[in-house]
Amino acid sequence: MKPGVRVLAVSGGAGGAKLALGLARALNPAELAVLVNTGDDFTHLGLRICPDLDTVLYTLAGVVNTTQGWGRANESFGFMDELRRQGGPDWFLLGDRDLVLHVERTRRLAAGETLTQIMADLATRFGVATRLLPMTDAPVATLLDTSAGQLEFQHYFVRLRTIPAVQRLHYAGAAQARPSDDLLTLLRSRSLEAIILCPSNPYLSIDPILAVPGIRAALRAADVPIVAVSPLVGGRAVKGPTAKIMQELGIETRALAIARHYAGLIDGLLVDEADASAELKGPMTDEFSKLGIVVGTARTLMRTLEDRQRLAESALDFSRRLQSKASLMPPKSLAGGA
Amino acid sequence: MKPGVRVLAVSGGAGGAKLALGLARALNPAELAVLVNTGDDFTHLGLRICPDLDTVLYTLAGVVNTTQGWGRANESFGFMDELRRQGGPDWFLLGDRDLVLHVERTRRLAAGETLTQIMADLATRFGVATRLLPMTDAPVATLLDTSAGQLEFQHYFVRLRTIPAVQRLHYAGAAQARPSDDLLTLLRSRSLEAIILCPSNPYLSIDPILAVPGIRAALRAADVPIVAVSPLVGGRAVKGPTAKIMQELGIETRALAIARHYAGLIDGLLVDEADASAELKGPMTDEFSKLGIVVGTARTLMRTLEDRQRLAESALDFSRRLQSKASLMPPKSLAGGA
Repeated sequence: MKPGVRVLAVSGGAGGAKLALGLARALNPAELAVLVNTGDDFTHLGLRICPDLDTVLYTLAGVVNTTQGWGRANESFGFMDELRRQGGPDWFLLGDRDLVLHVERTRRLAAGETLTQIMADLATRFGVATRLLPMTDAPVATLLDTSAGQLEFQHYFVRLRTIPAVQRLHYAGAAQARPSDDLLTLLRSRSLEAIILCPSNPYLSIDPILAVPGIRAALRAADVPIVAVSPLVGGRAVKGPTAKIMQELGIETRALAIARHYAGLIDGLLVDEADASAELKGPMTDEFSKLGIVVGTARTLMRTLEDRQRLAESALDFSRRLQSKASLMPPKSLAGGA
Repeated sequence: MKPGVRVLAVSGGAGGAKLALGLARALNPAELAVLVNTGDDFTHLGLRICPDLDTVLYTLAGVVNTTQGWGRANESFGFMDELRRQGGPDWFLLGDRDLVLHVERTRRLAAGETLTQIMADLATRFGVATRLLPMTDAPVATLLDTSAGQLEFQHYFVRLRTIPAVQRLHYAGAAQARPSDDLLTLLRSRSLEAIILCPSNPYLSIDPILAVPGIRAALRAADVPIVAVSPLVGGRAVKGPTAKIMQELGIETRALAIARHYAGLIDGLLVDEADASAELKGPMTDEFSKLGIVVGTARTLMRTLEDRQRLAESALDFSRRLQSKASLMPPKSLAGGA
C-alpha cells in the first residue's frame, strides 16, 4: 500500500524546490506532495512550458543543474544554437534534454490529457515518488503592470531580467480556474499533518496559487498547521526579486510584512535567525500575535543539501509544535476534516 | 529582378536531393525549383515532420550529413538520448538542430500558415535561393499494404527498415488534395525550360506527387520536355528499396519498366551507361519508341559533388535535345504555355 501524504509543500520554482527536496529527504518522498505554481507557464515556439513544475521535478529527481537551480545538469544546447542561427527567439534557454518534457507535455495536452495527469506520469518516469500537483489544470498567466508596460511573466522574469519596476500583478484566468480533484482529495485526506509554504516569492509564486478560487479555503479546511518559511534573510531576498518587488509595491522588506501578506492563511511563520533578532524584540512580537501568527526561527539559507534537510526538519518541528498548541484550542474551522 | 525559374526538379529525399543540388550548381540556384514529395510526412511526438522537404533543404543549404544523405552535419542528440532514457519512441532519429525545423513548422501550421509559405521562409532562412515546393499543402500519407500489414510510410521505411514485402501502395488524402497556386503559376511561367524527374523511388517518392489531382496534367501542360533520370544502375537501385519493391510488385528491374511506369508523362528517360548496353540493343529501342520515350544515357551514379553536377548537366543537355526535336513537331498540348 502506498503511504499517505503527510505534508503538502506549496512552491514556486528554484527556492521552493530546494525546500521540497529537503522535505522529501526528511520524510519518505511518497509522504510529500508539492502544490506548484503554474502562473509562470507559457507557450513558446508552440511548446507548453511549465518552468516551476519542471524545476520541482528536476530537483526532486536529482537531475537539476544545481548551480543555477533550474534546468538539467549535463545539458546540451544544439537546439538553441540552431534556433539562434536561424534568427529565432533566443532569450528563453531550452536545453536539448529539457525539450523532451515540453514536446511531450504539448502533445499530451493537445490530446486532451490534464496537466495533473501528465505531471503525475512524468514524475513516475523520473522515478519521483513525490506527487507534483499543478495549482490548476486551467491556463493561468501571471501578468505584471510595470514601468515597461504590461508584461507576461517570462518576459518580465527572463527576457527583461526583472529590471522593470512592478506596479501591480494580475493572475489572468485565475478567476475561471479551479483546483484539481487530486488536490482537493489530498487536502481532505486523514494522513495530512502539515502544509508548508516554501520560501518562494509570495507575489510571483505563491499568490497565483492562492488566486485560484477554492484553494485558500481548501488549505484552511484541511485543518492542519499551515507554516510559511519567510523568503527574506536579513531583510533581503536570497535570490530573485522578492525584496525588490516589495520595495516597488511600497512594502517594508521584513518578516512582519510577509506575515501580514499571509495573515488569515498561515498559523506560523518561520523566519531566519538574522531577522529574528531585529523583528522579535519587545512590542514586535505583539504585531505577529495580533495577526494570529506564531513566529519560529531557523537558519533558512539553503546552500547545501544538508541545509535543505535541516530547514525541512525545522519547518516540520515547527508545524508539530503548532499542532500540539492547536489541539488545546477549539478547531479553527468547522468545515475541516473529512 | 529575380531570374525566372528555368527548371523544375521533381524529387523525393536523399537521391533526388543530390541531383537537385547538381542542378542548382549547373544553373543559378534561383533558376531551379524543386517539387517535393510530402507523402512521407508524419506527425511524431506531436511534431509535423517532412523528411523529404527537409532533406532537400539541408542538401541545397550545404548542411546535410553527406554520409547518410539526410539530417544535419555536426548534429547532436541530447534530445534523443533523453527521450530514450524516458522510454519514449526512439526509432525515428531527431537531432537537436534538426528539431528546430519541426518545432517551427508545427507552430506555424497550427497558426494557419501553409506548408508552401513555411518552406519558402525556411529556405530564405537557410540562404537557399532555390524554391522548394511541397506537392500540396493538404496532408497526404503514403500507406503500404505489406506482408506485415498496412504500414504508414515511416514505420515501413525507418522503423521496419523496408523489410516487409510491399503488395500495394495508397496515397491517403491525395484525392482531396490539390497543387498549390505557387506550383501552378510556376508551371505556366514562360521562363520554364524543362522538368526533370530525379532518380527518386518512383513508387514511394514520385507517385505520391503524381497522385495529387491536377499535377500530372499541369506538368504536361507546361509544354516543356519532361525528362526522368532512371533510379536503376545495372538493374539495381543505388540505395533504398526501389529494386526490392519492383520485384515484390512483379515488375522487372530494368529501365524499360521505369519507362513504362512514366509513359504518357515523360518525353525522355536518362538511363545509366551500365543499363544502356543491355537495354538498348536492337529491338529494345523499339519498345521505348512505342512508349513515345526517347532514351539518353549518362553516368547516373552520384558519389561526389562533381558527379551530381555532371549528371545535372547531362539531364539539362538531354532536355535541350528533346526540346529542339519537339520544336520540329506539333505542340504536344494545346493547353500549354501561358
